[in-house]
Amino acid sequence: MKLHYPNGKKYIPAVKSISPSVKKQSYSNRGMTLEEDINITNQYYLELGKAVIHKKPTPVQIVKVDYPKRSAAVIKEAYFKQASTTDYNGVYKGKYIDFEAKETKHGTSFPLNNFHDHQIKHMRSVCDQNGICFVIIRFSTTDEIFYLEAEKLFLFWDRMIEGGRKSITKDELKQSAHPIALGFQARIDYIRVIDYLYSFN
Amino acid sequence: MKLHYPNGKKYIPAVKSISPSVKKQSYSNRGMTLEEDINITNQYYLELGKAVIHKKPTPVQIVKVDYPKRSAAVIKEAYFKQASTTDYNGVYKGKYIDFEAKETKHGTSFPLNNFHDHQIKHMRSVCDQNGICFVIIRFSTTDEIFYLEAEKLFLFWDRMIEGGRKSITKDELKQSAHPIALGFQARIDYIRVIDYLYSFN
Repeated sequence: MKLHYPNGKKYIPAVKSISPSVKKQSYSNRGMTLEEDINITNQYYLELGKAVIHKKPTPVQIVKVDYPKRSAAVIKEAYFKQASTTDYNGVYKGKYIDFEAKETKHGTSFPLNNFHDHQIKHMRSVCDQNGICFVIIRFSTTDEIFYLEAEKLFLFWDRMIEGGRKSITKDELKQSAHPIALGFQARIDYIRVIDYLYSFN
Repeated sequence: MKLHYPNGKKYIPAVKSISPSVKKQSYSNRGMTLEEDINITNQYYLELGKAVIHKKPTPVQIVKVDYPKRSAAVIKEAYFKQASTTDYNGVYKGKYIDFEAKETKHGTSFPLNNFHDHQIKHMRSVCDQNGICFVIIRFSTTDEIFYLEAEKLFLFWDRMIEGGRKSITKDELKQSAHPIALGFQARIDYIRVIDYLYSFN
């Protein structure tokens, strides 16, 4: 029997060999990007009726479209636009959820240039509206994942604006963010952190 | 002095002639699409700090991208994808807001084929999560605008699925939906309806 993820993707067994080192990390990353892991998580939340969170489509500036007879319109020229908001949003128990996910290959710090000015501005607006706003940061080399509340990200961002360091050290993240362990179905179970941080039903 | 909308669009005076018929409809549609009116409204809400609502980018399936030297990547082949969610979402006072906007040239009824199966499915999921979900319907010939709660849309949708009529009559909308008068800055002030329907602070 072939196993598939809820999104139709083929299930790839975590343990391909029985060498101890591989076994130890059986829940760890299977070569998936952070985006893929979060999409699988969101799909799982959706099917479970736990939350409705989607990734927004990539913003594209369409310049030229062909309309061939008897077939679908073809976009012949378009350009990637910079996103003016975050990538993910949706609803959990009536509350507005909004986040951005970024991974870095750096070992000991997370560079703040992963975010844009207007994304930070958007996150501030969301916080002002009492939305639940955060970023998910993954260190891809060590597979460490953090949930950092937007309000805390702003502190690091403002420190940079005021001339301070242009990154968040991993030690700072360990102190101010919440680690997320890789899970199986809810690969990156960020709602557990939301449940921990906010009390509502 | 040139006047501009908050989004930088040029202000076009409503009254170009002083004939009584034109004067009478000075707040009415100035040849703008429903999407443009809603975008202006959302921009106004954003600048006022009243709500953070954005239109999602058009979903596009990107097939071929060129990366010319020293210039931006060019998408050379892409196709429009059917949206799996609604077009607009965001946050108002911590609450999740989700809606779709459609206009019709029909005079007396609104055809339900303006919505897709999976959009209805998405709206049901949002309602299950206690999100605030609705559709904005405009009759473009008469400039009548209605706010129809998703829960009521489902009744008309299910009637169609069970073999009933494939549209909502304007009379039905007048009974079950909330009219929105065209305004000036908040062109389509749907938050007034939200405030009327829900009591939260």
